[in-house]
Amino acid sequence: MFDGPFPSDIDPAERRARLRLARSPRIGPITFQEALQHFGSARRACRELPAAAEADLAREDQALARAGGRFLVLGDQDYPASLATLADAPPVLSAIGDTGLLARPMLAVVGAREASLAGRRFATDLAAALGQAGFVVVSGLARGIDTAAHEAALPTGTVAVLAGGIDQIYPRQNEGLYRAVADRGLLLAESPFGTPPIARSFPRRNRIVSGLSAGVIVIEAAEQSGSLITAQRALDQGREVFVVPGSPLDARYAGSNNLIREGAILVRDANDIIGVFGKPQVARQSTDKPREIAGDSVTAKVLGALGSVPTAVDELVRRCQVSAATVAEVLTALELEGRLERHRGNSVSLI
Amino acid sequence: MFDGPFPSDIDPAERRARLRLARSPRIGPITFQEALQHFGSARRACRELPAAAEADLAREDQALARAGGRFLVLGDQDYPASLATLADAPPVLSAIGDTGLLARPMLAVVGAREASLAGRRFATDLAAALGQAGFVVVSGLARGIDTAAHEAALPTGTVAVLAGGIDQIYPRQNEGLYRAVADRGLLLAESPFGTPPIARSFPRRNRIVSGLSAGVIVIEAAEQSGSLITAQRALDQGREVFVVPGSPLDARYAGSNNLIREGAILVRDANDIIGVFGKPQVARQSTDKPREIAGDSVTAKVLGALGSVPTAVDELVRRCQVSAATVAEVLTALELEGRLERHRGNSVSLI
Repeated sequence: MFDGPFPSDIDPAERRARLRLARSPRIGPITFQEALQHFGSARRACRELPAAAEADLAREDQALARAGGRFLVLGDQDYPASLATLADAPPVLSAIGDTGLLARPMLAVVGAREASLAGRRFATDLAAALGQAGFVVVSGLARGIDTAAHEAALPTGTVAVLAGGIDQIYPRQNEGLYRAVADRGLLLAESPFGTPPIARSFPRRNRIVSGLSAGVIVIEAAEQSGSLITAQRALDQGREVFVVPGSPLDARYAGSNNLIREGAILVRDANDIIGVFGKPQVARQSTDKPREIAGDSVTAKVLGALGSVPTAVDELVRRCQVSAATVAEVLTALELEGRLERHRGNSVSLI
Repeated sequence: MFDGPFPSDIDPAERRARLRLARSPRIGPITFQEALQHFGSARRACRELPAAAEADLAREDQALARAGGRFLVLGDQDYPASLATLADAPPVLSAIGDTGLLARPMLAVVGAREASLAGRRFATDLAAALGQAGFVVVSGLARGIDTAAHEAALPTGTVAVLAGGIDQIYPRQNEGLYRAVADRGLLLAESPFGTPPIARSFPRRNRIVSGLSAGVIVIEAAEQSGSLITAQRALDQGREVFVVPGSPLDARYAGSNNLIREGAILVRDANDIIGVFGKPQVARQSTDKPREIAGDSVTAKVLGALGSVPTAVDELVRRCQVSAATVAEVLTALELEGRLERHRGNSVSLI
């Protein structure tokens, strides 16, 4: 199994069973969790239920590895914490690229495929400013707003969530962007490798876009648009929804203006968003430079609490008295600098 | 005195004294009220204070009459009820045109002089729809949004509040509109006849625009614009503020979007406003047809409570158990149909 060397809180056999269970017939995200609850483990669920064939899973695993990807399984240490708490958390995600981005604070930028020039320019400026402020920009690799947001955030960090399998480049015209995100950012997909995107994949994908993110920024959403579904999921998930207003004479803003009337935060520029969350402590200055840590005092605290003996991350969070997310950021930075080693049971040590 | 035949709750000598007091040096709207309070009557205040010369007032009176206008004095029956309750109610207004409009529900439409074509079109459509729904449209006769709103509302009823004296056509290019409003709508001015508009007249005028109105609709307000002052006055006066959103890339919407962030109601079309107030019961279908009464049951109630003996309007309101504004509308309609006579002490009788 290719994705062995990545740390997980679950043992390899149970992790493998979770992958099989997730790929089993009629097992969606919610039934996956119910099966885990009911049977106590994925291993037992796979024995009791008509589970996916091990051979099929091995084929997917190999195809994913050949594409340079790996699985993130619910329970893995680098499975995004923001998704793990959702009732319909994806049991498995395929990932190609820099999974370290998932430890940083994320914001989604979504909007119309048929965006206006002004809308795309706004998305570009906004995504660049959010990236500079330290946020990872999440979107759906669609034409229009998504494309503008990903492109502007490539230097600072961007995550594209695909509706089909992780090998399915959709829309086809975004092949160049797909490859750029794979190289410099992160591609994620819930659908199994090789699965073409179908209509109902898109709203399922949208819940991941919002679920990953602390907030969703909507730019040019018509009525009954996919962006409105993302905004609705974001509200269901307790995320902040930010909306760029537009003329009521422009149908591309009909959904946007409705959201503002319903209480979404009107956005004039990136400061209206940064003002709500504050600047993240770990900010990447450029993709070419080594990652720099803004919050030196937090890093010093974490370093002070660490040694050559593995320490549980939970214990670290308690000792440092900063948020789990901040500790995770600092640890990711140390890891990238080659100063940190990860161990079983979500524990870490200094090298 | 030309404006004798109009009904007032105050006796002619006191009314005349109020006019003099209002025109006296260093008497603003607030000191006017304080003087009334302190001295018990305008007559006594004029004896005790350095009051305006009777001759000067007579000259203004004559000039106003020659222009086809008359005074509305605080306390007159047709002095607008919405203004009368303000702490800084104008003690005197000059009026040219149909003062009956003041008995109908009013909404202000304000915005940029340098409005975009889209903004002007929005103002036109909105003012026409509000007029059709029975609202009188109030604005300031400025270029841009004001002009579009007045023009669209001419067939259904519009009030223009001027910053200078009522004879001061400003801006000059709106002379045609000024004359059309005088003929088919109503011109109002707080500044004495002949006074040119100066910078500080405009915010004072704006408080009347908002004060007359149940709500203020802002279309294309830049930062630090006069429309924002009107919106602020509206909020101070407890009026609803409605704002048409626009792109944050367009500076003409910077103030507008700020207002929405501060809690103003985002407007997509006239229904967003009509939905808040409901349709007035007295709706004018066209300027050429006789006024029609939508709420026949209310009219029946009012007619049932009236006879040839004068009845106080307050008493009528109590008996009919409908709002004072609704009763006022029904009475205005009956008056226009020639079926109602008004008497001293705010009482009415059927003819």
